[in-house]
Amino acid sequence: MAKAKGEFAEVKALLFDVFGTVVDWRGGVARDVKTLAARINRTIDAEAFADDWRLLYMPAMEDVRAGRRPFVKLDVLHRENLEKVLMKHGIPGKNAIGGLSEDDLDWLNRCWHRLDPWPDSIEGLKRLKSKFIIAPQSNGNIALITNMAKRAGLPWDLVLGAEVVRHYKPCPAAYQLAAEALGLKPEECMMVAAHNGDLLAAKAQGLRTAFVVRPQEFGPMTNRLRHFAGRTPLADPTPYRIDLGPAPEVDVSATTFVELAAKLGA
Amino acid sequence: MAKAKGEFAEVKALLFDVFGTVVDWRGGVARDVKTLAARINRTIDAEAFADDWRLLYMPAMEDVRAGRRPFVKLDVLHRENLEKVLMKHGIPGKNAIGGLSEDDLDWLNRCWHRLDPWPDSIEGLKRLKSKFIIAPQSNGNIALITNMAKRAGLPWDLVLGAEVVRHYKPCPAAYQLAAEALGLKPEECMMVAAHNGDLLAAKAQGLRTAFVVRPQEFGPMTNRLRHFAGRTPLADPTPYRIDLGPAPEVDVSATTFVELAAKLGA
Repeated sequence: MAKAKGEFAEVKALLFDVFGTVVDWRGGVARDVKTLAARINRTIDAEAFADDWRLLYMPAMEDVRAGRRPFVKLDVLHRENLEKVLMKHGIPGKNAIGGLSEDDLDWLNRCWHRLDPWPDSIEGLKRLKSKFIIAPQSNGNIALITNMAKRAGLPWDLVLGAEVVRHYKPCPAAYQLAAEALGLKPEECMMVAAHNGDLLAAKAQGLRTAFVVRPQEFGPMTNRLRHFAGRTPLADPTPYRIDLGPAPEVDVSATTFVELAAKLGA
Repeated sequence: MAKAKGEFAEVKALLFDVFGTVVDWRGGVARDVKTLAARINRTIDAEAFADDWRLLYMPAMEDVRAGRRPFVKLDVLHRENLEKVLMKHGIPGKNAIGGLSEDDLDWLNRCWHRLDPWPDSIEGLKRLKSKFIIAPQSNGNIALITNMAKRAGLPWDLVLGAEVVRHYKPCPAAYQLAAEALGLKPEECMMVAAHNGDLLAAKAQGLRTAFVVRPQEFGPMTNRLRHFAGRTPLADPTPYRIDLGPAPEVDVSATTFVELAAKLGA
């Protein structure tokens, strides 16, 4: 932890977790849920809807990771989970009377393509890009990450991620193959994430690791406690606890991407 | 040909051929061959060396395209071909007395990562990027295209290409899977190339097509005639004729990327 700049002289590429680390998925999903709710004259707890949708992410990928299902894009997993979340929130689906149209469902499913970055993300990425190759190594598919970047102005050098390497994080292959695609040794890559689980999985494959704290990932603390105390989530929320600090094994940590750039000499 | 801007309103992404279309492979390879020749005190016809190396590109990929060989990155094919070209030009290889070192060979093989763009490429790409997703759909591997872009300042939104789709152009799958990765219909993508063969293969899969003439791809015309008239190439040079104009089936053509941007309203 808190190593000097010179200790990362061998790092050539930074690989970024995206959902929660670069962008605010909860705020973006809730915003579009509210827009749809207003249009169809329904009351929806948009933040709870976002949390429920996100909580189905891990079990959905687990089928692919465990080899029970061939690789499918996250857009497909999101769409399958959307049907479940709509049902839980009492919104009629496509085949119900007065239900959402295919266009509505497709538009809502693509809210993940329209997430906004955290306030420091773009400035920090631009600085980091001046010194390093910067690429998302996200479980989001290529189109999702590309559309998000075009809309928000995220200045990636290239888009890596699950669809390129055909493995979902935290599979070891997801990290190994990302480094290999860049023609780099694992230790020449640094994984950047707000989640210690992601970082420790990367470290186990030899990558360097940077933790950036994102305390608002699940919304304001009071909201988060309210949501998780008063509701029955669709999936076990344990993996979604906020990491308020880096695990001891993590190489460097920062509170923003701009601070990370300063720590890495960019 | 020469359609008005409005006719391409459905196009959301431009896919670029890279070698010859965006960058000057011949000049870049010859430059580094000359550097190496000076260092080892040898005389090498650097332009002929570049031509010979490039001419082995198609037959090398053909083994992969025909399924005789599993997918391998272009860096690997370039390295295999480099050994043949060195032999032809009388340069002792790695295992010969006084031969090149592994570091020399690796450095020379990576000259393809260090190619310079044509003078209009960066300005044109920046304009095109303001309106479209821009991505290389090259036979170059991810590391090659990424390193080239970082060095030269090519502002890609993302890197597609053979390694992402696991098929070399002009295989139909190379174009189909690139559009699919972007979540787009083929007609929402436009292939940009200086080579009609690439464009017609893309068009056969439903993509729009843009021709940009690159008359200097094989060097000045006089040099080119000299090289191809006076030498015995290592492979059939027929596919490497310069296309001095678009095939009639091509949708739009330009002499520079800047002119293409203007024609596409970017």
